Amino acid sequence: MAQARIGLIGLGTMGAALALNIAEKGFPIAVWNRTTDVTHRFKADAGELADRVIPTDSLKELVEAITPPRAIILMVPAGAAVDQQIEALTPYLGPDDLVIDAGNADFHDTNRRNQAGLPFHFLGMGVSGGEEGARHGPSIMGGGSEADWSSVADILTAISAKAEDGTPCAARMGDEGAGHFVKMVHNGIEYADMQMIAEVYGIMRDGMGMDAAQISKVFSRWNEGPLQSYLIEISAAVTATADPHGGKPIVDVILDRAGQKGTGRWTAIEAQHLAAPIPVIEAAVMARNVSGQLDQRKAGEARFGAAPKRADFDTGALEQALIAGKILCYAQGFAMIAAASKPFGWTLNLPEIAKVWRAGCIIRSTMLNDMAEALAEDPARNLVLAPFFADLVEKALPSLRRVVVEAIDAGHAVPALVSGLMWFDMMRTSRGTANMIQAQRDFFGAHGFERLDGIEDSHGPWAMQQG
Amino acid sequence: MAQARIGLIGLGTMGAALALNIAEKGFPIAVWNRTTDVTHRFKADAGELADRVIPTDSLKELVEAITPPRAIILMVPAGAAVDQQIEALTPYLGPDDLVIDAGNADFHDTNRRNQAGLPFHFLGMGVSGGEEGARHGPSIMGGGSEADWSSVADILTAISAKAEDGTPCAARMGDEGAGHFVKMVHNGIEYADMQMIAEVYGIMRDGMGMDAAQISKVFSRWNEGPLQSYLIEISAAVTATADPHGGKPIVDVILDRAGQKGTGRWTAIEAQHLAAPIPVIEAAVMARNVSGQLDQRKAGEARFGAAPKRADFDTGALEQALIAGKILCYAQGFAMIAAASKPFGWTLNLPEIAKVWRAGCIIRSTMLNDMAEALAEDPARNLVLAPFFADLVEKALPSLRRVVVEAIDAGHAVPALVSGLMWFDMMRTSRGTANMIQAQRDFFGAHGFERLDGIEDSHGPWAMQQG
Repeated sequence: MAQARIGLIGLGTMGAALALNIAEKGFPIAVWNRTTDVTHRFKADAGELADRVIPTDSLKELVEAITPPRAIILMVPAGAAVDQQIEALTPYLGPDDLVIDAGNADFHDTNRRNQAGLPFHFLGMGVSGGEEGARHGPSIMGGGSEADWSSVADILTAISAKAEDGTPCAARMGDEGAGHFVKMVHNGIEYADMQMIAEVYGIMRDGMGMDAAQISKVFSRWNEGPLQSYLIEISAAVTATADPHGGKPIVDVILDRAGQKGTGRWTAIEAQHLAAPIPVIEAAVMARNVSGQLDQRKAGEARFGAAPKRADFDTGALEQALIAGKILCYAQGFAMIAAASKPFGWTLNLPEIAKVWRAGCIIRSTMLNDMAEALAEDPARNLVLAPFFADLVEKALPSLRRVVVEAIDAGHAVPALVSGLMWFDMMRTSRGTANMIQAQRDFFGAHGFERLDGIEDSHGPWAMQQG
Repeated sequence: MAQARIGLIGLGTMGAALALNIAEKGFPIAVWNRTTDVTHRFKADAGELADRVIPTDSLKELVEAITPPRAIILMVPAGAAVDQQIEALTPYLGPDDLVIDAGNADFHDTNRRNQAGLPFHFLGMGVSGGEEGARHGPSIMGGGSEADWSSVADILTAISAKAEDGTPCAARMGDEGAGHFVKMVHNGIEYADMQMIAEVYGIMRDGMGMDAAQISKVFSRWNEGPLQSYLIEISAAVTATADPHGGKPIVDVILDRAGQKGTGRWTAIEAQHLAAPIPVIEAAVMARNVSGQLDQRKAGEARFGAAPKRADFDTGALEQALIAGKILCYAQGFAMIAAASKPFGWTLNLPEIAKVWRAGCIIRSTMLNDMAEALAEDPARNLVLAPFFADLVEKALPSLRRVVVEAIDAGHAVPALVSGLMWFDMMRTSRGTANMIQAQRDFFGAHGFERLDGIEDSHGPWAMQQG
C-alpha cells in the first residue's frame, strides 16, 4: 500500500499548488483534505500528474500510503489549526516520521512545537512566492535539525525556485523556528519594498502629475537596471493594467486602504525584542495602519487641506533614491537577522539567506546576488559598510536626500524613504545627541551615564541644581 | 498591635520615598524589607516622620501591624519578584485585604495577576516622577476595581502631585492592568519628548554652533512659553551644569549612548498589536537603539564622513517645530490609548489621563491642561482635530516642515520630528498611495482590494497579464 514518498495535508490554494509541484518533480504524493470531495477533485484535476497523486480519505490512510520513515507536509492555517493537526496525526506516526509545517507560522510557535517533545520529527518551513511560487518554484526557508532537513532536501530543492546560477532557493536556516523567522523578516522587507515603491509612485502621480501609463514606463525602465526585481516588475504591470469596468487604469480605481496579514507587524515586534533598528519596515507598517484610518484622513484633509503638491522631480533621481532606500532597508533587515542568532541559539547564515531570496520569493531581485556576495565577505559587517554597497550608497545618497527633502517640502509622505536616511545619518555619526538623553535620564532617574573621557563618575552634580 | 493604615514592601529608592510621602501625609505605615537592617535604618532615618513608621521583621508581623481590611503596597522589581512576593504574602492575607503593585509592571502581567483568582484584592498602580516624585508627589495611574481604588483613594490622592488647579494627579484608569498600561504609554511619550529635545539640541549644537550655555538659555526661554514642561526645564538645567571634573559643560563629556529600561519598547510593541500608529515613539526607541551601536557609528563615520553640517536655523522656528512635534506625538499617544479600550474591555478616559499627567510625572507640562480640555470636548476625535490644537498645529507646522527639511538637507538626524510630520501628512490626505500596495498584494497574493466606485469586483484582471 505504501507508495508515496511524501504526504500533504491541506489542499487549499497553496497546498494544492505545492502538491502539484512535488508530483511534477517526480515524487509520488499522498494527499488528504478535511473535505474528502476536495481530495478527489484534486486528483481528478491533476491531469498528467494524476498518477503520482494518491488521494486518501482519512489520516490513517494517508499515513499508510507513505513509505516509512514518513514525511508529511502541513499546509493549514497558522496557529491553532496546526496544533490540532499535529494532535490528530500523533496516534498514527512513529518516532522516525517527520512533520513539516509549511504554513505561515509565527516562529515562536515553531520554537514551542520543537521544544514540546513531539513523538516524531518536526520541521518548520517558510515558503514564499504565493500560489505561483508554490506551483512552479518557491523560495524555501527551513528550520529544524540538519538530519531532518537532509531527509527531505532532495524533494525541497527539486521543487524550489532556482537562482540564475542554478542554485536551488531552498536551504536550512537553522534549528527550530529559524526558517519561519527568516520568512517573517522576508515579509517585513517585502512591506518596506512595497512602501518605498508606493512613495515614489505617489511622487510621480501627485508631484509630477504623471498618469499610470507614464508611471508604468518608468517602472519598466527601472526593471532593466539595478532595481530589477519582481516587485518593480509587477509595479510596471499593475500600472499598465486597465480596469475591466470602464477602462481607466486600475490603480486609479483601487481604494488606498492597505490590508495586512500580520507578518510585517510581527517583524516590527521582534525587532523591538532584539533592539534591532528596522525603521524602514516600521514606517511601512505604520503607513499601512494609517492608510486604514480613512475616515480620519478625510477629516484631516477637510481641516488642513491635502498635503501633496506639484513639484519637480526627475525620475533618474527617484531611481537613485529607491536604490539607496532599498540598500538601507536590507542592511537593517540583515542586521536584525544577525541579532537573532545569539538569543535563539541559531547560526543564521546571512549570505545563504540572501541566496535563498534570489528567486521564487516576492522580494527576489538581482541585487540579492550582490548582497549574498557582500555578506559572504564578512557577515558581521553591516551591509552598508561592504565596499560594493558603500560605493552604491555613496553614489545614490545625494539623490535620496534631495528627493526626500523636496518631497517633504511639497507635502509628500515618504516615511519609509526618510526613515532609511535618518538611520543612515545616525549610523555614520560617531558623536550623536544621545548625550542629552543620558543627562536627562540621570537628572530625573539617577540612571547614570558613561563619559567620553573614561573618568569613573557616572552621575551629574544635579543635587546641587535641584537644591 | 494593628496600628498602621497601610503597609509597604520594598524599601529601595522608590519604596522608601513613597513610604515617607505616605507617613508625611499623616498615614501610619508598616514597612518590611527583605534585609531587616534596611527596615530599621529606614525608621531611624525618618526624622520627625519616624513615629508614623512601623518597622517589621517578617511578613507575618507586617500583616499584623496593619488595620484590616489591609492594604499593602509592593515596590519590588517588576516581574518574577512581584509574583514571589504575592506568593509569600498569600498565607497571611484574608479575602478582604488588598495588594497594590506600585512597581513598573508590564500591564500584561497585571492583567494576568488580576485574572489568576488571587485570594485577596489586587490593584496595579503606575507611579511616575522618579524618586523626587515618589517622595513629594507622583502622578498615580491606578488599575483595578472601583471599590478597591476607593478603599485607598484617600491615601493615594493625598500623596499624589496636585495640578495647578489643585486636582490630585491620581486616578483610577480602569480595570486590571489599565493603570500600568497608561503608565507605559506615558513612558513611550517620555522617550519621544526626550528624543525631539535631543534633535533640536543637536541642531543648535552641530548646525548653529551654539555652546551648552547658549543652548541652556534657549531652553530656559522656551520654558516660559507653550513648551513649558519638566523636560524642557531640566534640559535647561543639564546644559547649564558644569562637569565637576574639569569644568566643561557636563553634556559635552557625557557619552552619546542612551540606555533604556524597556517601557519605550513595550509601548512600540503594544502599538503594533493595536495597529495604532505611534511613529514618533518608534523613532525615539530606534534612536536609542542606534545610539547604542557606537562601534558601528564610528565605522560609518570613518567610511562616509560625519553627517551633521553647519546650517542656519533660527531658534524661534525650532521652538515652533518642537511645539508641532509635541502635539503630533501626543495625538498619536492618546489615539493609541483610545485604541486599547476595546480589546482590553477598559473604558479609558482620555481627558482624565491628560489631567493625571499634568503634574508629578516626567512628561508634566502646561500643554497637558489644554489637552485635557480638548480631549474632554470629544474624546473620540483625534487631538490634532480639536480646534485649539488644530490651530496650533496649523500655525507651527510650516516651521516644523522647514526645520525638518533644512535639518535633513544638512545631514542632521531628526527621526522623531520627521516621523511626526510624515504621520500628519498622511493623516490629512484622503487619497494616499496605498492603492499601489493593494494592487501589488492582489497581483501576487490575490488578497483583493476595495474600489473607489463601490463596484463589487475585488480583484484585478492580472491573470491576463501573467499569461
